[in-house]
Amino acid sequence: MKALRFSSGQLALHDIPVPDNRAEALVRVARSGICNTDLEIVRGYAGFEGTIGHEFVGVVERADDRPAIVGKRVVGEINAGCGHCPLCLSGDPRHCPNRTVLGIVGRDGAHAEFLQLPSVNLLEVPEKVTDEQAVFAEPLAAAFGITEQVAIGPETRIAVIGDGKLGMLCAMSLGMLSHNVTVVGKHLTKLAIAEKNCLKAILSADIGPQMYGAFDVVVEASGSESGFDTALNLVKPRGKLVLKSTFHGTPQWAASRVVVDEITIVGSRCGRFAPALQLLANGSINVEDLIEDEMPLSEGVAAIKRAGEKGVLKVLLAADA
Amino acid sequence: MKALRFSSGQLALHDIPVPDNRAEALVRVARSGICNTDLEIVRGYAGFEGTIGHEFVGVVERADDRPAIVGKRVVGEINAGCGHCPLCLSGDPRHCPNRTVLGIVGRDGAHAEFLQLPSVNLLEVPEKVTDEQAVFAEPLAAAFGITEQVAIGPETRIAVIGDGKLGMLCAMSLGMLSHNVTVVGKHLTKLAIAEKNCLKAILSADIGPQMYGAFDVVVEASGSESGFDTALNLVKPRGKLVLKSTFHGTPQWAASRVVVDEITIVGSRCGRFAPALQLLANGSINVEDLIEDEMPLSEGVAAIKRAGEKGVLKVLLAADA
Repeated sequence: MKALRFSSGQLALHDIPVPDNRAEALVRVARSGICNTDLEIVRGYAGFEGTIGHEFVGVVERADDRPAIVGKRVVGEINAGCGHCPLCLSGDPRHCPNRTVLGIVGRDGAHAEFLQLPSVNLLEVPEKVTDEQAVFAEPLAAAFGITEQVAIGPETRIAVIGDGKLGMLCAMSLGMLSHNVTVVGKHLTKLAIAEKNCLKAILSADIGPQMYGAFDVVVEASGSESGFDTALNLVKPRGKLVLKSTFHGTPQWAASRVVVDEITIVGSRCGRFAPALQLLANGSINVEDLIEDEMPLSEGVAAIKRAGEKGVLKVLLAADA
Repeated sequence: MKALRFSSGQLALHDIPVPDNRAEALVRVARSGICNTDLEIVRGYAGFEGTIGHEFVGVVERADDRPAIVGKRVVGEINAGCGHCPLCLSGDPRHCPNRTVLGIVGRDGAHAEFLQLPSVNLLEVPEKVTDEQAVFAEPLAAAFGITEQVAIGPETRIAVIGDGKLGMLCAMSLGMLSHNVTVVGKHLTKLAIAEKNCLKAILSADIGPQMYGAFDVVVEASGSESGFDTALNLVKPRGKLVLKSTFHGTPQWAASRVVVDEITIVGSRCGRFAPALQLLANGSINVEDLIEDEMPLSEGVAAIKRAGEKGVLKVLLAADA
């Protein structure tokens, strides 16, 4: 089968055997989405080698321990725990120290014709959710996961730093609960998408001291040190700063300000898939606006390059016809 | 009156007029405590000039707007808000952007014969609390304030990084609520004090990977980058890291770990005085063990030097007889 793999510093489309671990389900991938984490891996920042990709929708070909799901269209939780440690036993394999993560840690990923995951990780996709929408289940779950960590009410003043695909999904998700969400970005075209989706939008260059301390919750989704500094400026004393982007390297930070202003920084990575699928089924979140391009898996290398261009939103890979 | 002042990079005992702003209360200082913040100011890291010191107990000499408190023995909340901004009006002058802070920001402090504060900031000290105990009200309030920000139960596994005066007060405070508190320090003599007070203690050099992720809550009270790294190692995924010490400079940090492990960092500075006074009145917290030395105000310069020596706990200044 075709698989987009990163190894020895090189990204290339390979022809490899279809995986055949019968302890897990086999999924034929219909669409996969390119995430910034894929780009980080390809830049060599993440130490992963193998098939990349972790956002997908596909059809179950085989699931020996869960035959009822065979033939169904599914998305999948990307963390697979060891099953034995205290965290797995308490129902949170997402933080299992021995976990593998689809296309990120110790497990081949979704930019391929087939992938494998434990069958328990798979969720059936409601009929009215299209493939193009369903492929957003993973990043939308991650974005909506913020609402499980931080209390959001209708009046909560929220700023989201970053108008990339993650920032936009965070803003759209939080916009479900608060009517007071502002996207801070660098691209007028993306800020226009935010405004079309009933969010406020501002160019980061236009932020002035009059906005300092004006937000109860600030989400840093730009992955840049300057974004983190902006977030610290915008959050009120005793406010919450949600750190949604992984950084590479070790940024500097004004730890003293965090102490003096008693700010809470909430690291946020994953969310649950079920609420995300529900949001997609409701049509509550307009993910179509975030799709920049769709290319066939066979053009995976070019697609990754495209996704890495400045200002480009979500690029999808589609199974070759 | 005598006042220990820092100006133009020099610490010296000065003779200055007794303050006479009749809109505020006048307190004759009986004891004041030397805090690490005083040491930071004297090292030039804090940008403050004037009389230093913010931990005190004294007797009210004058309070035109609150005559009932004249003659009483008091401690005092160190933040004085503007009284007009939304934060002050909501009852939290501690984060007023225009606040002054006793001996730290725009207001002369407590290492002097007299100090001034708004009378509303003053709390009467219960009779059975000695002066030596009462002077701990401010740092104990700051330490116990953690319990207002982070839920602590009897089984919560807590590590406190730092066996200095702040770390010990944090550990003692948290030990009131959890029987599972470990002090991580560098000084056997201080760790012995921790053990005497029913806390666990471990040398930081003895921390190994078997302790990684073993704590629900980790309090960083060492003010060092290595302490923050240790805290990140010790806290479990989705655990809480309380940042209690201000740092000077801008340390580096592994922001990605905070995201991947979904850690919450809680900046923590102040606490309420009333519960702290109650803990002192109950005899619940044995602050006497933390007193290293007591010297007269007239020897203030030497006392600051003494407090800055490696491994020294609390040094008190006493009014000259």
